[in-house]
Amino acid sequence: MKKTTQLRNIISSNKLEKIMESHNALSAKIVEKVGFKGIWASGLSISASLGVRDNNEASWTQVLDVLEFMSDATSIPILLDGDTGYGNFNNARRLVKKLEQRQIAGVCIEDKIFPKTNSFIRGETQPLADIDEFCGKIKAMKDSQFVVVSRVEAFIAGWGLNEALKRAEAYRQAGTDAILIHSKRTDSLEIESFMKEWGNRLPVVIVPTKYYSVPTERFREMGISLVIWANHNLRASIRAMEETSRQIYSDESLINVEPYITPLEHVFRLQDEEELAKAEQIYLKSHQSSPPRGTQND
Amino acid sequence: MKKTTQLRNIISSNKLEKIMESHNALSAKIVEKVGFKGIWASGLSISASLGVRDNNEASWTQVLDVLEFMSDATSIPILLDGDTGYGNFNNARRLVKKLEQRQIAGVCIEDKIFPKTNSFIRGETQPLADIDEFCGKIKAMKDSQFVVVSRVEAFIAGWGLNEALKRAEAYRQAGTDAILIHSKRTDSLEIESFMKEWGNRLPVVIVPTKYYSVPTERFREMGISLVIWANHNLRASIRAMEETSRQIYSDESLINVEPYITPLEHVFRLQDEEELAKAEQIYLKSHQSSPPRGTQND
Amino acid sequence: MKKTTQLRNIISSNKLEKIMESHNALSAKIVEKVGFKGIWASGLSISASLGVRDNNEASWTQVLDVLEFMSDATSIPILLDGDTGYGNFNNARRLVKKLEQRQIAGVCIEDKIFPKTNSFIRGETQPLADIDEFCGKIKAMKDSQFVVVSRVEAFIAGWGLNEALKRAEAYRQAGTDAILIHSKRTDSLEIESFMKEWGNRLPVVIVPTKYYSVPTERFREMGISLVIWANHNLRASIRAMEETSRQIYSDESLINVEPYITPLEHVFRLQDEEELAKAEQIYLKSHQSSPPRGTQND
Amino acid sequence: MKKTTQLRNIISSNKLEKIMESHNALSAKIVEKVGFKGIWASGLSISASLGVRDNNEASWTQVLDVLEFMSDATSIPILLDGDTGYGNFNNARRLVKKLEQRQIAGVCIEDKIFPKTNSFIRGETQPLADIDEFCGKIKAMKDSQFVVVSRVEAFIAGWGLNEALKRAEAYRQAGTDAILIHSKRTDSLEIESFMKEWGNRLPVVIVPTKYYSVPTERFREMGISLVIWANHNLRASIRAMEETSRQIYSDESLINVEPYITPLEHVFRLQDEEELAKAEQIYLKSHQSSPPRGTQND
Repeated sequence: MKKTTQLRNIISSNKLEKIMESHNALSAKIVEKVGFKGIWASGLSISASLGVRDNNEASWTQVLDVLEFMSDATSIPILLDGDTGYGNFNNARRLVKKLEQRQIAGVCIEDKIFPKTNSFIRGETQPLADIDEFCGKIKAMKDSQFVVVSRVEAFIAGWGLNEALKRAEAYRQAGTDAILIHSKRTDSLEIESFMKEWGNRLPVVIVPTKYYSVPTERFREMGISLVIWANHNLRASIRAMEETSRQIYSDESLINVEPYITPLEHVFRLQDEEELAKAEQIYLKSHQSSPPRGTQND
Repeated sequence: MKKTTQLRNIISSNKLEKIMESHNALSAKIVEKVGFKGIWASGLSISASLGVRDNNEASWTQVLDVLEFMSDATSIPILLDGDTGYGNFNNARRLVKKLEQRQIAGVCIEDKIFPKTNSFIRGETQPLADIDEFCGKIKAMKDSQFVVVSRVEAFIAGWGLNEALKRAEAYRQAGTDAILIHSKRTDSLEIESFMKEWGNRLPVVIVPTKYYSVPTERFREMGISLVIWANHNLRASIRAMEETSRQIYSDESLINVEPYITPLEHVFRLQDEEELAKAEQIYLKSHQSSPPRGTQND
Repeated sequence: MKKTTQLRNIISSNKLEKIMESHNALSAKIVEKVGFKGIWASGLSISASLGVRDNNEASWTQVLDVLEFMSDATSIPILLDGDTGYGNFNNARRLVKKLEQRQIAGVCIEDKIFPKTNSFIRGETQPLADIDEFCGKIKAMKDSQFVVVSRVEAFIAGWGLNEALKRAEAYRQAGTDAILIHSKRTDSLEIESFMKEWGNRLPVVIVPTKYYSVPTERFREMGISLVIWANHNLRASIRAMEETSRQIYSDESLINVEPYITPLEHVFRLQDEEELAKAEQIYLKSHQSSPPRGTQND
Repeated sequence: MKKTTQLRNIISSNKLEKIMESHNALSAKIVEKVGFKGIWASGLSISASLGVRDNNEASWTQVLDVLEFMSDATSIPILLDGDTGYGNFNNARRLVKKLEQRQIAGVCIEDKIFPKTNSFIRGETQPLADIDEFCGKIKAMKDSQFVVVSRVEAFIAGWGLNEALKRAEAYRQAGTDAILIHSKRTDSLEIESFMKEWGNRLPVVIVPTKYYSVPTERFREMGISLVIWANHNLRASIRAMEETSRQIYSDESLINVEPYITPLEHVFRLQDEEELAKAEQIYLKSHQSSPPRGTQND
């Protein structure tokens, strides 16, 4: 099944679905192998792994290069955290075209201004996009089969429920496939208030990074369509690498680390070295038997 | 101090020095913060994180793009695991030029054939490079200030000590800065035999991935100059991401994972969001006070 | 119609077909607008326009980046001059996968060794690829719908007709879609001798760069399927830029150059600025009427 | 001499200096060989050669990739037409850092809004940047040795001399190295009016694309520091490629084109194949004498 169709099915299913963050092809493979149906290509995680900030410091094509490796390495759909679309409607529709070439299933854009700042940093001070302009962007992106999720930042920026609803409705009329309603509260009050008024107009997506203690059952009751576990592979890997690096640094040895890390063979398995070994049998008929060059006459 | 000089000092110091694997800018930052003096940009780890195999499936410029982010994000020197130099002497000297532009301090090339295969996979069947051709490559790369480490694969390919010494000596005469003598044994017998005969002709570098249980003190006694912990951040991150993804997948919740992963604030700190906040104070004088656009007249 | 199908039709048509060299998206657009049915993405021309040599100095992904712009800008099929496939069978099949993502219709590979040298430079001294290995490469690339043309360099390297026929037949049996028989003679004797013996086993492609004075009618009589005009846009542009730059340099003025170069409006037309102007009407509803910011209160 | 110093000298010399447009490494080489002291990396030309529009359709790193090839291929300084800096002050200072790594000597930024539109297209409707914000951008870019030219679009956008002077003065105080005063009139009235009031506060740069018939002597009298011939290599190459492609298309032959285009040998010379031939003598000692592989036993 086409990845775009897969993502469409995830978003429109009757059940609460979950997708998991990845920031490179390796973490994307892991997410697929663990059983998730989809991948969240987090802007924060990708920028952090590139060593830059979540402020559009990496260019959109540098992000695209990461996504291409992720998409090539997996068969489940990827939803890109596409920030503000990296410019105006024209940049956003170009983005969609390039994503489709790489079999990325969908993109989520947020109603802020380029270059963006992460929503959990000085969120209140961040201006929102003009509604009409943002709707034009959605329309320009939707001239295709592609999935477009629109992220409403009204709560983040300190505007209330009315602004959130007004924007969500405008984006719905512009043709978006789903609304991501974002909140930085540690409870789900904003989300609940939104869900009550929103009804079932369109599927709703949430990112419970800050309200992680709210039981998932609660999200089901509210009628949420999709939950994004947004940055936890990145954060797990940071912790693990810090601990491992520190241990090796102080031990001056690998001995205490070896039992707690993945064996080399598992790395090769994740890389599917086996397929190459088989392919070499089929396509390569040389070298093997020859002695090292340069020593032939010794 | 220039990164090339830093690396030269590490290699030529009287002490046993250690550098640690990184595969992207994030892991490179962690290695620096933990206190290591240098970074090993592992070919295996970079390819694994890109979701491809350690067989030159990523192009040399795709590897270069990863390195550029790594180098920009850190101030300690990076030694690139440069496989076979990605072609002949001409490709190798082009590589050096591009690495120098990005302040990568040095490169290690191995005496195998392009495209390479990881030394721990079917090592015995892998042909070695022609000695003369490999020496030409070293000479072409050394027309600069750059550090070139030459990796001898003779033990890996099943050739004995004599071949290893013959090659190491040829590479020394061609001008290499150090010899990396590689072994896939789980003890250090090959390394010890080499060190005995080699004397102090040039600094020697080792990668004890397979003989990790040999005490580091032993390496000191042998007179090793540099130990590379070659892939342990990658392997730590795989384990952590697999466990975290599985936990979240089965729990359908973040609650059990949250205490064991890095807090979001630490991610922002690694990205140095603070510097940007300060820079905004200096260079940006707008937006802040204005209401969200599109709601001005409501 | 899919670009691959278009290219397949061109190669298998009963008529003599012609495709024209391009080296970037601009020249590709021009080739399409002039009426050609296909584009030859010349390795020589692309490397020259990148300022590097035709010796695989640009990485295969750098070439791919050029091709992506070319393919996005045109609707006729592109046949890539893919040198030796940039490595072994595994690199070659990866190339095919990436080309297909970008809607490149086919690739021509030549039976030489990576890194390659242009066939018109020291051709006699260039070793040919091992036949079995090259056939494995063809098979690995053909596991798809993609068009693979195999270029026989036997005449170039000073081997005679028998070697050329033997190789062409081996490549045919390996599954190639067409044979490109290359010659650096200024007459068509080698080509004619090949065509006589070859019969109609597979379509034959030629590149009459050196034997340009042979009438095209002669190629028709021989039964050639496809003629590639391989580097003439590049060479035309070099002449024009040299003359224009010299004129402006010596005149210290544009006045004598202006009448002989394309007007700016034509550049905008080639860029299809009109489509954007229309799209702005549809998708953009802002800015236009507002005064320049920063002068509002003057 | 460092390229940045070279560019600084060009801009601050007492004489009227001229630099010439290039859009890829090939045209950059030609500009250098013809004798120009510097290169204008035109945004319009680069985007046109990539087959996209002059509206920031190519990402800033895609432009950077073009520039890297241009800079590697030449020894004279390049001044990049950097549009609006591709975002805010933070994007602009990142750009400077990446340009410096690639030995690009300077950048010109214009006081419009990202994404930009070419100044000769609907110029009147284009909003100008906020002065304070633009000055912050200049300051952020100037924390280095790099040359920053600030382009005043006040005349283009239909604002008069006062706005132009006010902006130029603000940019001067922010630390810019030179002012580019742009005009789309076919005479030099706007430029003259500006020069009269401006005095010698900072060097002034002009782009006489539209007022090409004004004698260069006039620019000297006005006290202009630098004239940019901004897109004429591109326009020359388009004309030449269109004519050549049309001729070959209608002739079905190369015969009438061959005498009017650059010979292949000149292409090889521009690529400096000679240096590689010499380097092969030094660094490569193999292959040459061996027969083609695969025919050894025939």
